[in-house]
Amino acid sequence: MTQWFCEGLALDTISIDDRAVQYGDGLFETVAIRGGEPRLWRYHVERLQTGCARLGLATPAEAALEDALSSAVAGSRIDAECCVAKILVSAGQAPRGYRRDLDGKVTILIGLSESARLPEAVYKDGVIVRLCNTRLATQPQLAGIKTLNRLEQVMARREWHDEAVFEGLMLDTDDRLICGTMSNVFLIDGQSLVTPAITRCGVSGVMRRHVLTLLAEAGIDGEVRDVAIDEMWSCDGVLITNSQFGALPVKRCGDKSWQTGDMTHRIMQLLADSGIGEQPA
Amino acid sequence: MTQWFCEGLALDTISIDDRAVQYGDGLFETVAIRGGEPRLWRYHVERLQTGCARLGLATPAEAALEDALSSAVAGSRIDAECCVAKILVSAGQAPRGYRRDLDGKVTILIGLSESARLPEAVYKDGVIVRLCNTRLATQPQLAGIKTLNRLEQVMARREWHDEAVFEGLMLDTDDRLICGTMSNVFLIDGQSLVTPAITRCGVSGVMRRHVLTLLAEAGIDGEVRDVAIDEMWSCDGVLITNSQFGALPVKRCGDKSWQTGDMTHRIMQLLADSGIGEQPA
Repeated sequence: MTQWFCEGLALDTISIDDRAVQYGDGLFETVAIRGGEPRLWRYHVERLQTGCARLGLATPAEAALEDALSSAVAGSRIDAECCVAKILVSAGQAPRGYRRDLDGKVTILIGLSESARLPEAVYKDGVIVRLCNTRLATQPQLAGIKTLNRLEQVMARREWHDEAVFEGLMLDTDDRLICGTMSNVFLIDGQSLVTPAITRCGVSGVMRRHVLTLLAEAGIDGEVRDVAIDEMWSCDGVLITNSQFGALPVKRCGDKSWQTGDMTHRIMQLLADSGIGEQPA
Repeated sequence: MTQWFCEGLALDTISIDDRAVQYGDGLFETVAIRGGEPRLWRYHVERLQTGCARLGLATPAEAALEDALSSAVAGSRIDAECCVAKILVSAGQAPRGYRRDLDGKVTILIGLSESARLPEAVYKDGVIVRLCNTRLATQPQLAGIKTLNRLEQVMARREWHDEAVFEGLMLDTDDRLICGTMSNVFLIDGQSLVTPAITRCGVSGVMRRHVLTLLAEAGIDGEVRDVAIDEMWSCDGVLITNSQFGALPVKRCGDKSWQTGDMTHRIMQLLADSGIGEQPA
């Protein structure tokens, strides 16, 4: 169960006339709270602010988001040491029609829920992923940000019921690998890594940004560019990243298998050293 | 104000955990109630059912939709002779994550509001439209249906504040004319009409379908195909259609003006004869 808060007050419902309901007019962030602190907080704030600017919504100040989050945590029964905080920013209530009020004021909702910890083995052995048939549409105006329009991900997630499959990877309409339904993807090729550019579609994940920063600091070549899906079939290893689980090696996608190699171990170690505690050291 | 109902009971709010709020996981129809009857009802029902099937949601039976609508009307203060009924079908409540429950059960909400009648003059003189910069992304899986993911329309509608501009027309990424933010479009060329195919993006409007049926019955050539925007600049006339206002001639888009010609008059007359009473006879 998720416990929701608005301005520190618990609530279960939202007005049906809210533009989040009617049009998906808003954005969200899913923040991992670890040791009582929101992890990769600056990255979440920056993506949310970028998203608000892109959608023409009033940009919440970092302090306002911090206040919203801490007052929710204070009022919650959820373990505030380790949980998931969903920040939902909606364009708010408005009369019928696509047109917004000129002021673009937003409503900030905080949803707290328990953190689902993955078994330690998957960080060592890796996960199974699949390639989804649902394609990501090219829409540069929405690429990178995390809007409430998520039907492509919902449709992709509908494609499998096999509990052994952890994630689905998605392509754009030109057979480029973009990201997973809930994760970003890195391909390992020798001593370098590549992650797909998120310029036409897809979500630019905070953990992807963190990994890219760690790679740069460690002097490892981490390239951001267009990636044809064929590159995945011939690469040495695949990693997926997400704000909650950190990074996971991929052991199989369809008929293709990968071994967890030295570079994967090195990146998992870099993450562990940076405080992404889900990684077994 | 919109008055909302679920299973005949008035309500103002929806659970924040509803998938309509979190992901825009659902569909809607905006039905014109005229003379106490839902206009073009079969077309609305069919599009909604098509949409549910496409999204993998349980398809509501026509009788269930009729019941939902009539119980809402019975409980409402809104003038039931002439109003707007928004039918919102949501994927309902679910735990966090893109994955749906396997049963795909839906929630049906009915929102009734007053009908905004346009001045009669616009049906004769036409309206001013603009060409939006926001493009419609190519996503065949969502094309034609009316989902709750409407950020492209919201962004397009943000492009203008000039009250004189009635509607914005939208292109896809290959400079094809697709539809307006809230309407479909017909181009008149001599004795024939063409309306863009809605196969890659856009919404397939009920009034568009009604006009195409009327054209076929009247023996007028009405083609449905890809339309390059350049065709609009050289055509003899433009019409936009929508469930609420019926059909309106376009008198200007940017620097280009059109006169209301014989074919426009003929189509407006066909609509009036078919009971689309907004058209002055």
